[in-house]
Amino acid sequence: MPFTRIMLREGRTEAWLQRLSTLLQQQLVERFSVPPGDCFQMIECCPPGRLIADRDYLGGPRSEQFILFTITAGRSRSRQQKQAFYHHLAQALHRELGITPQDVMVIITCNQAEEWSFSHGQMYNPEDV
Amino acid sequence: MPFTRIMLREGRTEAWLQRLSTLLQQQLVERFSVPPGDCFQMIECCPPGRLIADRDYLGGPRSEQFILFTITAGRSRSRQQKQAFYHHLAQALHRELGITPQDVMVIITCNQAEEWSFSHGQMYNPEDV
Amino acid sequence: MPFTRIMLREGRTEAWLQRLSTLLQQQLVERFSVPPGDCFQMIECCPPGRLIADRDYLGGPRSEQFILFTITAGRSRSRQQKQAFYHHLAQALHRELGITPQDVMVIITCNQAEEWSFSHGQMYNPEDV
Repeated sequence: MPFTRIMLREGRTEAWLQRLSTLLQQQLVERFSVPPGDCFQMIECCPPGRLIADRDYLGGPRSEQFILFTITAGRSRSRQQKQAFYHHLAQALHRELGITPQDVMVIITCNQAEEWSFSHGQMYNPEDV
Repeated sequence: MPFTRIMLREGRTEAWLQRLSTLLQQQLVERFSVPPGDCFQMIECCPPGRLIADRDYLGGPRSEQFILFTITAGRSRSRQQKQAFYHHLAQALHRELGITPQDVMVIITCNQAEEWSFSHGQMYNPEDV
Repeated sequence: MPFTRIMLREGRTEAWLQRLSTLLQQQLVERFSVPPGDCFQMIECCPPGRLIADRDYLGGPRSEQFILFTITAGRSRSRQQKQAFYHHLAQALHRELGITPQDVMVIITCNQAEEWSFSHGQMYNPEDV
């Protein structure tokens, strides 16, 4: 039930982007209580100068490899769960793709379950899961 | 007062996209209590591999024709109104554009009226409508 | 702690877009209680027909130069602060870039502080600021 927009600079291969997508989904499943099949993402690769991130504010130094994940989730998670997700996502991206944790930013926004329709014109029903 | 981002694969004609835009607005007006002129949208057409949707999770089977609507609305609607909107939007897209209801996903997020400025640097004022 | 997506028609120079980015950040700092270094933005320049805005609804008349700012903020601001921000942003864009206030639209959405991870896999901590 999350939908994630992944924003980064253009120039990565399709295989690299696919790996990025898979790693995010793995961490959502392992650390954010997301069912394995519940995978919905948009990967937005932009020209230079369009994705703007302060080099040093509350972290960094950020580079041209900066990646921003904005996640819309149908319910909130505990503080502990969010912290674990942030940590393990950054670790996995570093370990598997060589992305420095300095370049990883995440923003989560929550809405309600009934604000989701996955398919067939039907409102999300928790009993379907 | 809603703003909708429409996400789909590139390759549609401008006329088709315009029809899609009009159909969405019609359903927002008829089923979601949106005034007729209150039409604000971004249509995002992306290359293959960028819009990722699980084939079968809570619906589907989804195809390359998958369309995701993310709607930001200035106030919430009733459960019944949301369900009717999901249903009739999927029906209209099927009837008018041949989009299978399996390929239609909707996510709604709400904020507050005073978080909108439509023009002229002025905060939204319900008395203006 | 805000992240802003700036949407407009393609065709502006990189220097113009950079100026737009800087003006937005200045107004966020001066009118929206944002620390100077807290600058995170995506500028989305789209082909004709993709960014759709009613010509006259609650303002306008809007032109091809329409700009939509969607701001995600980690905490809410007062009604007075929002109104001042809308007003001064429109004024600054008019004064510095010649954008008519008729063409400026803003949508703010709020989430919570712990829904932000700026870097290093760490949850936002107010004591770090």
